[in-house]
Formats: sequence, C-alpha cells, structure tokens
Amino acid sequence: MRDGSLIHEGERLDDLGRKELQIIQHPGQFCFGMDAVLLSEFAKAAKGENCIDLCCGNGIIPILMDGRYEGATFTGLEIQEGACDLAKRSILYNDQQERISIVNGDLKEADKLFKAGSFDVVTCNPPYMTENHGIVNPEDAKAIARHEIKCSLEDVIAAAARLLKPKGRFYMVHRPFRLVDIYDLMRKYNLEPKRERLVYPFIDKEPNIVLIEGVRGSKARLAMEPPLIVYKEVNQFTDEIIRIYYE
Amino acid sequence: MRDGSLIHEGERLDDLGRKELQIIQHPGQFCFGMDAVLLSEFAKAAKGENCIDLCCGNGIIPILMDGRYEGATFTGLEIQEGACDLAKRSILYNDQQERISIVNGDLKEADKLFKAGSFDVVTCNPPYMTENHGIVNPEDAKAIARHEIKCSLEDVIAAAARLLKPKGRFYMVHRPFRLVDIYDLMRKYNLEPKRERLVYPFIDKEPNIVLIEGVRGSKARLAMEPPLIVYKEVNQFTDEIIRIYYE
Repeated sequence: MRDGSLIHEGERLDDLGRKELQIIQHPGQFCFGMDAVLLSEFAKAAKGENCIDLCCGNGIIPILMDGRYEGATFTGLEIQEGACDLAKRSILYNDQQERISIVNGDLKEADKLFKAGSFDVVTCNPPYMTENHGIVNPEDAKAIARHEIKCSLEDVIAAAARLLKPKGRFYMVHRPFRLVDIYDLMRKYNLEPKRERLVYPFIDKEPNIVLIEGVRGSKARLAMEPPLIVYKEVNQFTDEIIRIYYE
Repeated sequence: MRDGSLIHEGERLDDLGRKELQIIQHPGQFCFGMDAVLLSEFAKAAKGENCIDLCCGNGIIPILMDGRYEGATFTGLEIQEGACDLAKRSILYNDQQERISIVNGDLKEADKLFKAGSFDVVTCNPPYMTENHGIVNPEDAKAIARHEIKCSLEDVIAAAARLLKPKGRFYMVHRPFRLVDIYDLMRKYNLEPKRERLVYPFIDKEPNIVLIEGVRGSKARLAMEPPLIVYKEVNQFTDEIIRIYYE
C-alpha cells in the first residue's frame, strides 16, 4: 500500500534491503539489530509451513522471513502493545498481511492462545540479559525487550516446545555465555540441539552471538557450522555478511 | 638420561619441539595427534598444583604439560599396560620421573586408587567414538584409545568430579558433535563449563575439535574464546598453531 499515514509522529521508516521491504521503528523503543537479520537467514521455512516468532517486537523476524521464504505463513507473538502496533503497521505498509499476523499476548500463556503442536517452526530473538537489578523502570519498553523481565529463557523454551509439532524446528539467537543454560533447558523440554553457529565480530575475537537450531524429539548429535565472521576490517563487512543482508 | 635402550624394537622416538622432550611411540598403538598438543596449551597448571591426566595413553599430555608449566606434579592414569610401559620409558628418557608418575588402572575405580578431592587439575583426551559396532577386536589397543569401550564419557566426567578439589579445574578435548552431551554430564556432576574454544581446520570449515574447561562447583557463565584456525592454506599452519607447538 505504501501508505505514509501508517508512519506516526516520531517514527522512522528503515529500508530492509530486500524486496523493497520497510520497517517502521521508534527510536524510543527497541530497534532491530544484526541478531535479527542473522536469525532470519539461519532459520528456514519451507512452502506451506506454519511459523511463529516469539517475542516478535516490531515484527522484524517474520517480515524478513516472509521476504526470504515463499509460501510459509507467520504469526508474531509479542507482549508489548506498542511493539505490536508498530509490527501491524509495517506489515500493512509492506502488504504482507495475508501471510503475517501479529498477536498481542504473553508467551507464558501460549497454550491458551494457540493449539499445542500446531507449528512447524518457532523462531525467537529473546531478551538476553538476566541481571535485572539495575533497571529503573520495569515497564520501560527497551528494558522489556532486552532483559528477562516478562519472560525467562525457560519460559521461551517451554513455550517453543509446547507449540511445535513432533520434529518441528526451533531457531533462536542468543549470547554465547548462556549456551550451557540453553542446552540444558532445551534437553529438559525435549528440544534437542542439532545445529549451532557462532558469530565472531573479527577473526581474532570472542564470539558475541550464537545461532541455534533444535528439533523436537530428535536424537543427540550437534552439527557445528563454520565460523561467521562479521568484519574483515573495522567498518568493512565480510562478503558473507553482505550476502546474508542483501541476497 | 637419553638412554637409547629405552626404545624397543618397532618403536620410534618423536621430537616434541619443546625443551628437547621426546616421546616413544609404537605405530601399532595410538600415536598422539594435534588434540593432545592443543589440550596441553589450553589447560593450565600453576606451581605446586597436583594434576592428573585420565586416559593418558603414552603420556603425551603430562610430558608436554611438565615441559610447559614449571613446579607442578603430574599423574597419568591409563588402563592399557602397553601404553603405560611406553609412557614410563619416555618419562625416564626425558628425566621427568621426579614430576610425573604413571598409574596402570581403570578410571572407573579412581576413588580406590586416589583420595577423593585430592587434585587441583584433571586433564583428559578421552576416546571420542560412541559407535562400537564396527570394531572387530575390542582388545585392540587403538580401538580402546579411540572408542568408548573401556570407559564412557560419563565415566570420565564422573571420575574427574570425584578427583577434583572444590574449585578444581577440568580440561578436556573432544569432538564438537558431543558438546550437548558433554555439558549435560558436566552439570550432572557439578563441573560447571566455564571456558570453550573451537578449533576450525580452515576459516570457512566446520570446527572438528573443542577445548573445554570446567570448574567444580562454580556458577554458570561460559566464556567463549576466539576461534582457533589451524591452516591458513593447505599444509600451511597459522601463526597461532606454530606458537602453540613451539613457543
């Protein structure tokens, strides 16, 4: 529709560099980062698959995945009303409303909102931070997106396990320092970790992002992927990052 | 002593490239690989620390660690008598017998052989392979070194946990496809994974070795290290690998 009235005062329109997709963002709220872009490429969705993104925020993951994978349908679940509103308007702006729907709700009540075992794919870019003691206002939109205030890592994994069909796939992006907790909880909920990729900002630096695929009810064997290096020099992306963003 | 009579018929003497250390190896038995060298550098031993290497084979890990870290003492535990014999002769050849002792025994009975909680450091380069069905002769020395015939991953981790003091460190080298099992078992025995480094043969290939440090009774937080790349081109080691081998 490209309806400019969908963009409200104080918001901006960001080009996603893919099929002319745009996203409406508000600088006062959580704006998407590289994590979301990497997850949208690491995750896969085949024709006819029913996908849900937990903690979808402004809808970046379903918007990008719909641009990348044809013929799948997407639901975005988000607890913050303001973020849902942004997501819905971006989807209208991009004319994606036939394939993406946004639900305002709490993932801890996912089994009341959706039928158990009804999704082929669950994606999630959850809040990473466990330390909540420094947060002045726990209703602050950015804090909710970044810290485990409204949901814990265990809530996310438990909800994913409930929503997935047997052999359904769970894709998550997170911080490497939580990997042991992540694998521990995934096994607890029978989401076997099957694939891992580490993202290193430079070839000689510690990884700061991890991409994980789990499969509900699969047997144990982890496939580790080649390292994903972000920069070849300061401010200069590697060819693979450019390919992930724009191809 | 440099006593040539310590080297028996059919054996060879390999230079370790460090403080003139040598190792006696038999081509019909398991010969050490890069894994052992990387573990000896990833693991740390401070002055006065009491260290034990489980599944020590021909003694490569204590021999290299004694060459690298001054003032620590080392025990090597090995179930195969032939490997123990090789290890003892290499240690005599290198004049390391005051700091390294070799014990022929089963790690599943470690608590009968050693006092519980009596070591600061446990190292292990265990058998990696879980599939034992293709093995013709389960008494074959190479098969025992490579496959979980005489001990399982859980036996290794359980023994390490029993032998370590509180806050003692466990260092292991393994294959990345077992990482989820490794972390699961380490938590089960209260050896919290604290540090991980992945070894990639080339910058664009899957990792084939993982180095892990766990600390008995520590709290959860995993530090991931920069990638260790082995080759810059075919047959050409990276500078870091050369440094690890020879500096």
